[in-house]
Amino acid sequence: MKVSDIGEFGLIDLLARLVAEEGPPAPEAADFRLRLGIGDDAAAWQVGRGTEVFTTDTAVQGVHFTLASTPWRNLGWKIMVANLSDIAAMGGEPLYTLVTLGLPPDTPVADMEELYRGMLEACREYKTAIVGGDVVGSPVAFVTVALTGVCQSSRLLTRSAAREGDVVAVTGTVGSPAGGLQVLVHGALVSTEARQHLVEAHRHPHPRLVEGRVLARAGVRCAMDVSDGLVDDLSKLCLVSGVGARVEAERVPVHPLLRKAFPQDYLRMALHGGEEYELLFTGPEELVRPLLAELLTTATIIGRVVADTPGHVVVVDGSGRELAPSGAGWDHFRA
Amino acid sequence: MKVSDIGEFGLIDLLARLVAEEGPPAPEAADFRLRLGIGDDAAAWQVGRGTEVFTTDTAVQGVHFTLASTPWRNLGWKIMVANLSDIAAMGGEPLYTLVTLGLPPDTPVADMEELYRGMLEACREYKTAIVGGDVVGSPVAFVTVALTGVCQSSRLLTRSAAREGDVVAVTGTVGSPAGGLQVLVHGALVSTEARQHLVEAHRHPHPRLVEGRVLARAGVRCAMDVSDGLVDDLSKLCLVSGVGARVEAERVPVHPLLRKAFPQDYLRMALHGGEEYELLFTGPEELVRPLLAELLTTATIIGRVVADTPGHVVVVDGSGRELAPSGAGWDHFRA
Repeated sequence: MKVSDIGEFGLIDLLARLVAEEGPPAPEAADFRLRLGIGDDAAAWQVGRGTEVFTTDTAVQGVHFTLASTPWRNLGWKIMVANLSDIAAMGGEPLYTLVTLGLPPDTPVADMEELYRGMLEACREYKTAIVGGDVVGSPVAFVTVALTGVCQSSRLLTRSAAREGDVVAVTGTVGSPAGGLQVLVHGALVSTEARQHLVEAHRHPHPRLVEGRVLARAGVRCAMDVSDGLVDDLSKLCLVSGVGARVEAERVPVHPLLRKAFPQDYLRMALHGGEEYELLFTGPEELVRPLLAELLTTATIIGRVVADTPGHVVVVDGSGRELAPSGAGWDHFRA
Repeated sequence: MKVSDIGEFGLIDLLARLVAEEGPPAPEAADFRLRLGIGDDAAAWQVGRGTEVFTTDTAVQGVHFTLASTPWRNLGWKIMVANLSDIAAMGGEPLYTLVTLGLPPDTPVADMEELYRGMLEACREYKTAIVGGDVVGSPVAFVTVALTGVCQSSRLLTRSAAREGDVVAVTGTVGSPAGGLQVLVHGALVSTEARQHLVEAHRHPHPRLVEGRVLARAGVRCAMDVSDGLVDDLSKLCLVSGVGARVEAERVPVHPLLRKAFPQDYLRMALHGGEEYELLFTGPEELVRPLLAELLTTATIIGRVVADTPGHVVVVDGSGRELAPSGAGWDHFRA
């Protein structure tokens, strides 16, 4: 059996079981106590009065990025944002970054300076420092970032806290990064204005760090970031929460320029596009609705958590009719 | 200019300068204060009364390992040991591990189970838990581990604390992993007994975690682990400490089976072999000499820190004659 037979998430499940069955208990040294292991946006442990969080994310050339769609400087920004977004999804703020570069020997040094400039832009903007890492030879270029962060509040945002009756909400808009990829890689012809918006959305996403902290402080308990596609990620959240969800397609927030540029395709992009780095969260309506106005960015209620097969997400149109599942989220071994 | 023109350490220097010049100051949140950034075995920050350390290490197939020399299970053990050894070199104990797998889609699932079994063996032996990670597609297989740890003592072992007049010491013996590689990859013919010792040294090294903590508690301030070769690593330690060193070749601890198996080559292997994961440390002789007997493993004084061009290491034979530099340490882009 090959990893392509069971897919990325099948492999993760299998390895997580192995860790649970054959691994030792988490160590407890000094005042460190593990709170969350495999399965959320980040691992988390108590240390003293705070909760530290720890995440990692990787980009491989030809798999996650090509230089056509993502110049090195944008890649630097994006790989930091992918990690920062995981910290945002826990309700934390970032602390310290390790960077691993895997590089072919003929990689131009100037490219690596550009990559680092992009990473350092994100470091300045979101207040984290690169404190170490590793540089290794590799036949294919890759960048791995590992990032720690801290939650001031004792409350963490987790994927497993969705409850039946909660509303489902998402920050910002979704689908534009997927539109940007269509423009950059597949040469889709759109207006200059749309092109600018879509390419910016693809190359220069923002982690919702402030929003994550506002949500955690206000008492929201359940969130994750949208990196593999809205429906796919909501399904993962529902699975570990033991619930299902119903999403109203018409409520899913889409930028007008995406809708205009791709009138046939925008909904598919919004429901199944990845690399959004928006926050998906759930909570009681009376808690969530007044919060929407307090966030830095817009946020929109798009549906509700329901009793259903865990992980089952239904998308309905304006007349309540179920839309056929079209496309799927990102799986590294099945894409 | 390509990265092969400036080498691994030239690239690291350049990127470290960029981080210092263009990066933001390290964030200070709650009770977190950065103590050590780029340039040591691990980054380190104060948190409450302890010091947390953070390291990462990567193995790329065909670069760091081949399945001929390193079956997956051994690779799992070794990649954990490479990281654990960095924690040992700071005087810390390990806490939490993130694992990133980059995999071609046709990778057998059973191989990944073997890899994880090897990692979990090391986790059980040295008390760390795998708490998360990432799985991505990649044309070449790679494994990146990021590991946190904690130093109970307020004293950290660092590379930059060597002082003129200190003795230089190393735990265990050196050279046997390089001998094992000769046997496994180049088919060197040696006795059955030697083969067993050398292959075990190559495939199943041990991090000197207990020794690192004993050294830190006793007041030793300067250490690093031997991963790129004894002379090369000592040179790095001397460079950041602003000193030189003089090593007596006859004192360098070599296993008798290595000496017997490679009578012409054992010294080169001992001085320049990598992946040893022994601890190299320096300190005043009156502090270090009585300590040697207290360590779990043997340790040997091999030379002395001297005033010299920073980073200059001289190796002398029994009559005090300088040995010509033969071979060099591991550089990912020049090897």
